[in-house]
Amino acid sequence: DIDRDRLVETMEEQAAIGGTEGGGLHRLTLSDADAEARDWFADCAAGMGLDLRVDAFGNMFARREGADPDAEPVLVGSHLDSQPYGGIFDGALGVVAAIEFVRTLDDYGIETERPVEVVNWTNEEGSRFPPAMQGSGVWAGAHDIEAEYEKTDADGARLVDELERIGYRGADPAEPREPYHAYLELHPEQGPFLEETGADVGIVTGIVGLRWAEVTFEGQANHSGTTPMHYRDDALVAAADVVTAIRRLPGSLGERTVATVGSLTVEPNSVNIVPETVRFTTDIRDPDEATLDRGVERMEAEVAAAADREGVDYEVEHTMRAASVDFPDRPVEAVAEAAADLGYDGRRMVSGAGHDATHAASVCETAMVFSVSEDGKSHTEDEFTSWADCYSSASVLANAALDLAGR
Amino acid sequence: DIDRDRLVETMEEQAAIGGTEGGGLHRLTLSDADAEARDWFADCAAGMGLDLRVDAFGNMFARREGADPDAEPVLVGSHLDSQPYGGIFDGALGVVAAIEFVRTLDDYGIETERPVEVVNWTNEEGSRFPPAMQGSGVWAGAHDIEAEYEKTDADGARLVDELERIGYRGADPAEPREPYHAYLELHPEQGPFLEETGADVGIVTGIVGLRWAEVTFEGQANHSGTTPMHYRDDALVAAADVVTAIRRLPGSLGERTVATVGSLTVEPNSVNIVPETVRFTTDIRDPDEATLDRGVERMEAEVAAAADREGVDYEVEHTMRAASVDFPDRPVEAVAEAAADLGYDGRRMVSGAGHDATHAASVCETAMVFSVSEDGKSHTEDEFTSWADCYSSASVLANAALDLAGR
Ligand SMILES: NC(=O)NCCC(=O)O
Ligand SMILES: NC(=O)NCCC(=O)O
Repeated sequence: DIDRDRLVETMEEQAAIGGTEGGGLHRLTLSDADAEARDWFADCAAGMGLDLRVDAFGNMFARREGADPDAEPVLVGSHLDSQPYGGIFDGALGVVAAIEFVRTLDDYGIETERPVEVVNWTNEEGSRFPPAMQGSGVWAGAHDIEAEYEKTDADGARLVDELERIGYRGADPAEPREPYHAYLELHPEQGPFLEETGADVGIVTGIVGLRWAEVTFEGQANHSGTTPMHYRDDALVAAADVVTAIRRLPGSLGERTVATVGSLTVEPNSVNIVPETVRFTTDIRDPDEATLDRGVERMEAEVAAAADREGVDYEVEHTMRAASVDFPDRPVEAVAEAAADLGYDGRRMVSGAGHDATHAASVCETAMVFSVSEDGKSHTEDEFTSWADCYSSASVLANAALDLAGR
Repeated sequence: DIDRDRLVETMEEQAAIGGTEGGGLHRLTLSDADAEARDWFADCAAGMGLDLRVDAFGNMFARREGADPDAEPVLVGSHLDSQPYGGIFDGALGVVAAIEFVRTLDDYGIETERPVEVVNWTNEEGSRFPPAMQGSGVWAGAHDIEAEYEKTDADGARLVDELERIGYRGADPAEPREPYHAYLELHPEQGPFLEETGADVGIVTGIVGLRWAEVTFEGQANHSGTTPMHYRDDALVAAADVVTAIRRLPGSLGERTVATVGSLTVEPNSVNIVPETVRFTTDIRDPDEATLDRGVERMEAEVAAAADREGVDYEVEHTMRAASVDFPDRPVEAVAEAAADLGYDGRRMVSGAGHDATHAASVCETAMVFSVSEDGKSHTEDEFTSWADCYSSASVLANAALDLAGR
């Protein structure tokens, strides 16, 4: 049984680091606020007497030895970085719950059979440096570390320079240093499903696949008053057609498909100039890879058709692709049993968001616990999970992790 | 007969101030580059022995006395400020041609009956501080100077502070200090009409009316992966509908209507966040006021319908309204006769762009000369008028101005 008051205190401690006036977090990866959150994580680890390793990509692992030091460890954690204006639960709840799991083991003097490691992954959000889930992706071998080091933010700062600046380019290679028994992650659902179905906690059975692209339309800047309509090569008109098409895409693909244009910029962006260049992103998700392929194909066809209609040039760059993941039975059942044992109504579901668990799943048996997200809000300061839901989901995580680590 | 080589030299002199690598101009109003262009204008006036007045809004008037000092003066000029990345002709050609007109009077020792004033208006472009044609608008009494002083740029700088910073907040009241006989302005056409019809020079008979608005859609930021499509309040999807509708508006209104969304910004503008806030501008133009009214009404109806479909809030702010202008016969005929006398094919046309002449027309009899714009390009560094077309249009301006000023 975890300590509910201490869980809330630990959540509030981290929420004070990079906290915003709106009650959320501005804790972009590798920023000063992220560095402070990392220092806080290191202090927590030291307070529990854990051994801390930082790898060459800044991923942090705090290790509690088990009775059998040669047994494959159980890894538990999430991320402490945030969206530009995100909530205080996204990522942090998973790290705090993992810390509280270890503290609870100490409270009760429990020695697990396997070692337990608490992890804080670098750059899960991907909003400062692309892509999302980057630290876990490097660790799992999905990305080449040298290529990721060279990524730059909007101000041109290089990732590796920022990592060194905040003092978190560690000595350990960024890779699994031994086989792991399992990875468990608690995260807010970030959607409305659990609340809608009245469930207490989510038993995550897998993660949707996602495809991101960046589209550029290149037209011709011209005067809005003197250029007849049929003379125009208007990049924004072409982009608007695609935004509309992307909105309609899910209805014609699959009932679980979602598709979004989240970012769009116009140049020169002046009231009386016909738009010359428009850059925008597309984000298409579905649990089924064939459906994803069809979605990306249609997006490309819409881009080509819109460019043709408006007489503008186009380019499509595929910036991220994460295959859908099905979690294996054993850790999923550990989560389901923990929920049942504690008397919670646990609902099985597929995650619509990518998580560090996506990459961990390629290294070891992986599963996730979801907490209820009020109104399904996420990636906004209004994100909210009640303390009661934090407590129940963290309890499920702790019991499932203990089951996997063995008493 | 004006001096063609000197015209080119004078054009090149000003083009060096705030010149860009792309061969255009970055000379935003009240910037350091604008200050330098103003100093250059003052030097030109001093070189011609003209008396220079700067009014409280930074409009600059250089006066050459006439035989009858009590006669109402003829005003000739345009603007030296540019778009963020504009061409070297837009505005500057009109100021340079007015300077060359006075130099030519000196070359030939011509004393006009009426005084001649060369004017450089403040902030014609409106791209740094709204609205466009601001200095002439204040001077003509269309705007309250105190309200315009408070306008801020994207960095929050106040117009009046910038005016003082560059030393061009003058002592004279910003108003016509006496009745004027006429205002004449040479400007590139900024559209393809003259080139298409094979004409040498444009005889401008009036200016279209224009209506600008700023529309805001306010939805709800949310996670692009976990938020089902029917849960979304997507401000960008709503905006895309309006961009498309604005593109179709002219076809259903009038054959001379043009309508544009030139500027659009998205918040938070992240690949995996459903857009919360979108702000965009609309620009609708037509020579007929009733058609304009219908256009603005339809735009508002489209905004309301799109907001309703997507479940977002909206706001429409009307940021600029310029009534269409019909120039009176006398100055228009002076331009037409000058073109005919010089053997040029002058074509009568209505301007699709607003000009300082819009406001001057409310103070005194006004007309304009247009030079050919190659490919109709404007508000881009690619704007181009050949030296031959600069020369022919400047010659028409000089002869028409001399006609109005009297020998
Ligand atoms: N959990 C989460 O928000 N991850 C970021 C990647 C994504 O957009 O799914
Ligand atoms: N001539 C010109 O570009 N004026 C700016 C105002 C407008 O957009 O018409």
